[in-house]
Amino acid sequence: MTSNHDVVIPTLDIRGDRIADDIAGFAALSESGPGVTRLAYSPLEREAHRIFSDRMQKLGLSVHTDAAGNTIAELAPTEPETDGRIIGTGSHLDSVPHGGRFDGIAGVVAAMEVARAVVRGGGARRRRWRFVVFAAEEGARFGQACNGSRMVAGLTRSAELDSLVDAAGVSMAVAMREVGLDPAAIASSRWNSDEWLGFIELHIEQGAVLESREIEVGVVDVISGSTRLLVTVRGQASHTGGTPMHLRRDALVTASECVLASDRIANNPEHHGTRVTVGRIEVRPGSITTIPGWAEFSVDIRDVDSDRQRRTAEELVAEFERIASRRNTDLDVELMGDTSPVVLPVWVADHIVAAAAELGMRYRILPSGASHDSQQVNRIAPTGMIFVPSRDGLSHVPEEFTSVEQIAAGTRVLLAALMRLDASV
Amino acid sequence: MTSNHDVVIPTLDIRGDRIADDIAGFAALSESGPGVTRLAYSPLEREAHRIFSDRMQKLGLSVHTDAAGNTIAELAPTEPETDGRIIGTGSHLDSVPHGGRFDGIAGVVAAMEVARAVVRGGGARRRRWRFVVFAAEEGARFGQACNGSRMVAGLTRSAELDSLVDAAGVSMAVAMREVGLDPAAIASSRWNSDEWLGFIELHIEQGAVLESREIEVGVVDVISGSTRLLVTVRGQASHTGGTPMHLRRDALVTASECVLASDRIANNPEHHGTRVTVGRIEVRPGSITTIPGWAEFSVDIRDVDSDRQRRTAEELVAEFERIASRRNTDLDVELMGDTSPVVLPVWVADHIVAAAAELGMRYRILPSGASHDSQQVNRIAPTGMIFVPSRDGLSHVPEEFTSVEQIAAGTRVLLAALMRLDASV
Repeated sequence: MTSNHDVVIPTLDIRGDRIADDIAGFAALSESGPGVTRLAYSPLEREAHRIFSDRMQKLGLSVHTDAAGNTIAELAPTEPETDGRIIGTGSHLDSVPHGGRFDGIAGVVAAMEVARAVVRGGGARRRRWRFVVFAAEEGARFGQACNGSRMVAGLTRSAELDSLVDAAGVSMAVAMREVGLDPAAIASSRWNSDEWLGFIELHIEQGAVLESREIEVGVVDVISGSTRLLVTVRGQASHTGGTPMHLRRDALVTASECVLASDRIANNPEHHGTRVTVGRIEVRPGSITTIPGWAEFSVDIRDVDSDRQRRTAEELVAEFERIASRRNTDLDVELMGDTSPVVLPVWVADHIVAAAAELGMRYRILPSGASHDSQQVNRIAPTGMIFVPSRDGLSHVPEEFTSVEQIAAGTRVLLAALMRLDASV
Repeated sequence: MTSNHDVVIPTLDIRGDRIADDIAGFAALSESGPGVTRLAYSPLEREAHRIFSDRMQKLGLSVHTDAAGNTIAELAPTEPETDGRIIGTGSHLDSVPHGGRFDGIAGVVAAMEVARAVVRGGGARRRRWRFVVFAAEEGARFGQACNGSRMVAGLTRSAELDSLVDAAGVSMAVAMREVGLDPAAIASSRWNSDEWLGFIELHIEQGAVLESREIEVGVVDVISGSTRLLVTVRGQASHTGGTPMHLRRDALVTASECVLASDRIANNPEHHGTRVTVGRIEVRPGSITTIPGWAEFSVDIRDVDSDRQRRTAEELVAEFERIASRRNTDLDVELMGDTSPVVLPVWVADHIVAAAAELGMRYRILPSGASHDSQQVNRIAPTGMIFVPSRDGLSHVPEEFTSVEQIAAGTRVLLAALMRLDASV
């Protein structure tokens, strides 16, 4: 064992075959194809947590699932503790509808392999290590993202869980109770900042920067914020043949102009870096021969600049209202979710950079376009993020792909960085 | 009985209470609310035909349902036949999803009341009278409208019934077989033009001309044609946060620009009278946090000018292709249905006008924006149409409304006009 101050070069064994088995095991849990559908607070998400829990218990870790549905495995130190503080790693196991096999899962599988490596490898550790699966990270079901990690950070109150509702009208509180969780007790899931030394999440990049530059790992400096709106347009349904053009109040024409306005504003040079997407749209009655009298669509606004993120949202809502009014339709806008961008602490990133350098890997500092649990965890524990490459930059689709070798390489950096945290004073 | 050449003023009793009962009876047959959902070739449409059939049989008419699902009740003449030719009236009993209680139904109920009036009133008739319920008039389910009447006119071949498919992937042939009809035998449903003297359909206006001018009946001179397209856009689904704006291939942004192009082209002054509507749109995967990689929408183009109708369709397809190409997405256009506008014969309209004038009712000659079975029947039998007012011009919605008094007034004109046809040489 080296001294606390020396750099630890891990010789522990990170094995691709075990990583591949874990990825395949989780991918088998899907509601329907194509791709993986394992939604936030669904029975299949719980089943995935149970598999994680079983594996960690068999390895000798103590495991529990909190009221928020986060599953946490703890490994005791092998040496006298330095200061009783905890270091952690992990990610999430839920998916968007028809998503991929790697978003979130890669980070959980990396955490599981790190746990196996340190338990079986028998290296000395001076701190408590926690391996965490956060619940309900994806915002696809309830609009709000990072739910389990928000609860850990004390950002969500029990009362709010009734007003977060999915497309079928099921509230988050009801969904949680249906899978045996306790929405009234989520305050008990909160983490204590004083206990934590640091946290590192491995995740797929979900962009094409690493792949296009043939770089093995990314080290995240900033995580984008996101503001999510649900927009409802009300016009007047009527017969497509009998209703003259000038008397129409077509909700879809209004919604279409809003979609184009979103695309135009996000492409404006002064919004460079803002991304705006309408991912969901529904019209009613939805008949070929009836003018749509009602339309509803989601708007997802992402930015690394907190101020610009909110100004874009305001600008969009004002533009939507102008469009609706000009087209003689009514508009309602509901705020579904709002998360600020987060600048991650440089000293944690420095440990990741040093670990990559020690292992002789190419790395690059880059921002994250997607939201991550790390954004929330960073309020409690200084947090870093390691990205591994995404083929063609695709994510949230069945084609999402990162090779076992790429995940294993990222996992080696993760383990080395965690060992550095373990050894730090 | 007057002579064949004199005007017949009917004194036969048209009763609002019976009309109201029939309207309520059919309105009770609906899949789900709001409004009436009784789709083409569904079990509920068949149930409605059965009610019509029962009522007509109890009245002493001979009734049969043909292979296409049209239900036809025949009343023999009371006097020696003039020339053995047939006069007819009727409409349809299917609806769009969440449509109203009157579209089609008003004309069937008027036909039922005419049958009761002449059977119970005991007036003399020199011709065979047919009361017809056409199957599957609404194009909302399969794209193609006026299916039963098209088969009567020999416009649809059995082989085509496999390629007309609803949103759930069920072909018209399968739907017909499921409700006990015989798609292979539809040629046997064809009418013989030599047998027919004339046909008159009563229908709600589905526009606001009659109501805004306080006119009791409309006499249709031209019925709009319609061209229906199914447009599919293929882009690339990916993560809304991870994918920069300039790398996107967003199928919904392309589709939205197509919706706006449709609205703009139809509102162009040189297209005065053309109506273009996108009534259905669907995106996949349909998640808040995934860029839509796929979108599909319907386009309904209506015109009273046959040439302009087809030029508009071509102009739209060319514009859609430009938009898709500029946005780096792929586009497929499928022709779902195509029906030409029809100019109805003046001599039948003249009988309706004369009947209205005799009864002291205000009437107006006007075009029909909607498609009707009359468009197809006119290929076999010289056809006229009587419109009754639609409140606020609304149709294909639960709010669709025409009062019992308004339907009864139209039914009196219908009966008088049929008596004039019966008496004509």
